[in-house]
Amino acid sequence: MRQSLSDFLDRSSVRYTIMGVILFNAVILGLETSESVMNTTGGLIVALDTACLAIFVAELVAKLYARGWRFFRNAWNVFDFVVVGIALMPATGALSVLRALRILRLLRVVSVAPTLRRVVEGFISALPGMASVFLLMGVIFYISAVIATKLFAPTFPDWFGTLGRSLYTLFQVMTLESWSMGIVRPVMEVHPEAWIFFVPFILITTFAVVNLVVGLIVNSMQDAHAEESNAATDTYRDEVLQRLIAIEKRLDAGR
Amino acid sequence: MRQSLSDFLDRSSVRYTIMGVILFNAVILGLETSESVMNTTGGLIVALDTACLAIFVAELVAKLYARGWRFFRNAWNVFDFVVVGIALMPATGALSVLRALRILRLLRVVSVAPTLRRVVEGFISALPGMASVFLLMGVIFYISAVIATKLFAPTFPDWFGTLGRSLYTLFQVMTLESWSMGIVRPVMEVHPEAWIFFVPFILITTFAVVNLVVGLIVNSMQDAHAEESNAATDTYRDEVLQRLIAIEKRLDAGR
Amino acid sequence: MRQSLSDFLDRSSVRYTIMGVILFNAVILGLETSESVMNTTGGLIVALDTACLAIFVAELVAKLYARGWRFFRNAWNVFDFVVVGIALMPATGALSVLRALRILRLLRVVSVAPTLRRVVEGFISALPGMASVFLLMGVIFYISAVIATKLFAPTFPDWFGTLGRSLYTLFQVMTLESWSMGIVRPVMEVHPEAWIFFVPFILITTFAVVNLVVGLIVNSMQDAHAEESNAATDTYRDEVLQRLIAIEKRLDAGR
Amino acid sequence: MRQSLSDFLDRSSVRYTIMGVILFNAVILGLETSESVMNTTGGLIVALDTACLAIFVAELVAKLYARGWRFFRNAWNVFDFVVVGIALMPATGALSVLRALRILRLLRVVSVAPTLRRVVEGFISALPGMASVFLLMGVIFYISAVIATKLFAPTFPDWFGTLGRSLYTLFQVMTLESWSMGIVRPVMEVHPEAWIFFVPFILITTFAVVNLVVGLIVNSMQDAHAEESNAATDTYRDEVLQRLIAIEKRLDAGR
Repeated sequence: MRQSLSDFLDRSSVRYTIMGVILFNAVILGLETSESVMNTTGGLIVALDTACLAIFVAELVAKLYARGWRFFRNAWNVFDFVVVGIALMPATGALSVLRALRILRLLRVVSVAPTLRRVVEGFISALPGMASVFLLMGVIFYISAVIATKLFAPTFPDWFGTLGRSLYTLFQVMTLESWSMGIVRPVMEVHPEAWIFFVPFILITTFAVVNLVVGLIVNSMQDAHAEESNAATDTYRDEVLQRLIAIEKRLDAGR
Repeated sequence: MRQSLSDFLDRSSVRYTIMGVILFNAVILGLETSESVMNTTGGLIVALDTACLAIFVAELVAKLYARGWRFFRNAWNVFDFVVVGIALMPATGALSVLRALRILRLLRVVSVAPTLRRVVEGFISALPGMASVFLLMGVIFYISAVIATKLFAPTFPDWFGTLGRSLYTLFQVMTLESWSMGIVRPVMEVHPEAWIFFVPFILITTFAVVNLVVGLIVNSMQDAHAEESNAATDTYRDEVLQRLIAIEKRLDAGR
Repeated sequence: MRQSLSDFLDRSSVRYTIMGVILFNAVILGLETSESVMNTTGGLIVALDTACLAIFVAELVAKLYARGWRFFRNAWNVFDFVVVGIALMPATGALSVLRALRILRLLRVVSVAPTLRRVVEGFISALPGMASVFLLMGVIFYISAVIATKLFAPTFPDWFGTLGRSLYTLFQVMTLESWSMGIVRPVMEVHPEAWIFFVPFILITTFAVVNLVVGLIVNSMQDAHAEESNAATDTYRDEVLQRLIAIEKRLDAGR
Repeated sequence: MRQSLSDFLDRSSVRYTIMGVILFNAVILGLETSESVMNTTGGLIVALDTACLAIFVAELVAKLYARGWRFFRNAWNVFDFVVVGIALMPATGALSVLRALRILRLLRVVSVAPTLRRVVEGFISALPGMASVFLLMGVIFYISAVIATKLFAPTFPDWFGTLGRSLYTLFQVMTLESWSMGIVRPVMEVHPEAWIFFVPFILITTFAVVNLVVGLIVNSMQDAHAEESNAATDTYRDEVLQRLIAIEKRLDAGR
C-alpha cells in the first residue's frame, strides 16, 4: 500500500499535475493583488486558492505517509513542508504578515522542477567555500558598526543611532548606494575627517566582495575543468601506459 | 534568372553598397532629430530617408524572389524583414510611436556586417545556458512582487500599488539604484521591519546575477580551452601513439 | 621557564579561551553602544571591558617575555601589539577618537582564528601583483584632481575647492555614485563641456578597475591550476618516463 | 656625436633624474592649486615649474636630435612630444583651458617607468579584441539615442533635447546612476510606457558590458595559460618523443 502510493507520487504525470497546480496558484495569487479583480470575483479567487492549498496539503500528507520518517531526510521535502506549513498557520493579529508569506508556497515550483532544483543546489554548494570570507566580512561589519555608532550616533541618530541602524547604513554604503551624496558628505559637514573611516571601509568591503566572486569563478572553473579533462585525457593516458606495458612484455618474452 | 539575382545579391560590392546606404540613412535619421536642420532642409531629408527605405525594400523583395520560402529559414533574413517592415507600417494615431522605431532599420548594419553578426550570435548562443537561472530569477521576482504588493500597496501605491509597479521597483532595487535612500528608508519609516524583506532580496538577486556572470565566464573559457588544446595537443598525442604502435609492430616483426 | 610559558601559550585550550574572551568582549563593546543598557548597568559593562583588556595585555606580555625579540618578527604579533596598544592609550582631548578605535581590538579574532588568518593572508598576497595598476590609478587620480581643481575650484568650491576635495569627489565619481545627477549635470550647467573631462575619466578608471579584477582572477586560476595539475599529472609523467627508460635498458641489455 | 648623445640619454642615471624632475614637478603643480601657497610663494612656484618644463623640452630636443625621424616611430616618444607640447602652447582666450591640461605632462611618468608602461601597453593591447563589441554598443547607443530624442525631446528637453544630450543621458542610464528615481520615474509620469524602452536598454547594454569583461578574462587566461603550459609541458614532451625515437633506432639497429 505504502509502496504503491510512493510509486504513484513518483509518476511524472503526478509531478506535472502538481507543477500545473503551482502555476495556476501563482496566477490566482497574482490576481489577488489586484483590487478591482478582488472586488468583482474575490470569492471565486479565494475558493480556488483554498483548493490549490488543499491539493498541496493532500500531496504532502500522502508523501509523509508513503515515506514515513525518511521523508524528513530529504532537504527538499522539509522545504516543501515548511513552505506549505506557513500557509496553514493562522494569520491574525501580530502574525498578519504571514498572509503575505503564503505566496512563498510558489517556491514549491523549485522543488518540483529538476532544472531549478539543480540551480539552487549549485548556489547552495558554493556557499561553504565562501564561509570564511563571509565570517571576515561579518567581523569587519560588526567592528565598523560599533565605531560608527560611537562616533556618529549623537549627530546622526537616524543613520547611526543604534548598532542595527549602523549595520544597515554600512550595508547601504557597501552597495555604493548614495554613499557620498546621501551619507558621507552630510556626515563630513559635521565631522570633516569622516572620509578616513568611510573610504577605507568601501575599499576593504569591495575588495572582499571581489574576492568572493573570484573564488566562485575559480571553483566553478576547477569543477568544469576536472570533469572535462578526466573524460578527454584519461582514455589517452590509459592507452599510452597499456602500450608501454605491452612493449615491455614482448621484450621480456622475446629474450 | 533567380540564380543570377541571388549571385548578384551575394556580391561583396552589393553588400558594401547596402552598408553604405545604411550608414548614410543613419546620418539622415540623426539629422532628423535636430529641429533647426528640419526647419531649413526638412523636405530634402525626408526625401533622402524615403529613398534609403526604397532601396532596402527593393533589396528585400529581390532577396525574397531569389530565395523563395527558404528566405525565412535564415533568422537574419527574418530580422531584416521585421526591421524594414516596421518602417512601412502606417504611423498614425495610437501607432505614432512606430515613427520613432523606424530608426530600428539601422540595426540592419548588424545583419550586413559579419563581425557584428558574430558578436550578436555569440551573445544569443550564451542565452540558453543561462535559461534556468533566468527562470529562477523570474520566480524570485514574481514571488517578491506579490509579497511587496500585499505588504506595501496601501502605504506606497506609487511604488508597490500593482504587481507591475512592484516588479519595476524591485528591478530598480536589484540594480541597487537608490534602493536605500530612495525606496527602503522611506518604506522603513512606515514599516520599520521592511529591511527583513529588502536586504535578503538584494543579497539573493545579486548572488544570482553573479552566478550568471560566473557561468558565462566558465562557458567561454571551456569553449576557448577546447579549441586551443585540440589544436596544440592532438598532433603530439597522435605522434606518441603512432610511434608506440610502430615500435610494437617492429617487435612483432623482429621476433 | 620561558619554554614552558611558550608551550602553555601554544596550547589549543589557551587559544580557545582567548577566542572566547574576544567574542565576550565583542558583545560587551556592542552593548556599550546602547544608551539604555549603559544607563542601567554601565558600571558592570565598563568593568567587564577592563577585565577583557587586562587578559589581552597579560597574554601579550606573557608572549613578549616567552618569545623575546623574535615576537616582533611575526607580523600577526605586531598586529596584536598595535591593536591592543590602541586600547591602552589615553583617550582625552584631541585623541578622544581613540575611544572609538578600542573596538579594533576585536580584530584579534582574525589573528587567533586560523581560517580568518588565511583569508586575510590571501588578500594581502594578492596586493603586490596589483601594485603597478594601483600606481597607475594613483597617477590618473592625481592628474585628474589637479585638472579638476584648476577648472572647477572657483565655481564649485565644495566639490573641487582643494586638491583633497577633488580627489574625494573623483573617487565618488569612480564608484559611479550620483556622478551624473549629483555632480556632472550641475557642473555642466556652468561648464557645458565638462563631460569631456568626466566621461573619459569614468571610462578609464572603470577599465582599470576591471583590469585589476581580471588580474586577480587570472592569478587565482593559475595558482589553483598549478597545484591541481602537479598532483594529477606528475605521477603519470613519471610513470611514462620510467617505463621508457626501462624499455631502453632492456633493449641495451638484450643486444 | 649623435651616438654619444643617444647613449647618454639611455643611461639609467639620466632616466632616474628625469623621473625625479617629473615627481618634483608633480608636487609643484599640486601646490599651484592651493590659493594660500600661491599668494605667499607664487613666484617661486611658477619659476620652478618653468624650470621643470625647460628640462623636459631640453630632453625632448636632445632625443629628437639624437634619433632623428626615427624618434616618431616609437609611440611613447610621440606621446611625450604631445604631452610636453601642450604645455608650450599659448593658453590665452579660448585656449585658456590648456592651462589646466599642462598637468598632463605628469603622464610622462608612465613613459619613463617601465612597469607603468607595461600596464598601459597591456590595457591598449586588450582594446582591439573588444573592438567589435564596442562597435555594436555604438550602434545600440546611436539607435537608442535617436529613439529617445524622438520620443522624449518635447517633454524632457534637458535630458533628451538633442542627440548629444540623449547620448549623455543614456550613458548615465547604462552606468545605472539614478536611472530610475532620477530619469525613468519622472519620464514615466508623462509617458507611462517608457519602461518598455529603458528596461531592455539597461539589460542589453549591461549584458554587452558583461560580455566585454568575460572576453577580457578569457583572453588574459589564454595568454597566461599559453606561456605557462609551454614552459612546463614542452620539455616533458620533447623527452618522451626523443626517447621513443631512440627506442625505434635501437630496434632498427638491433635487427
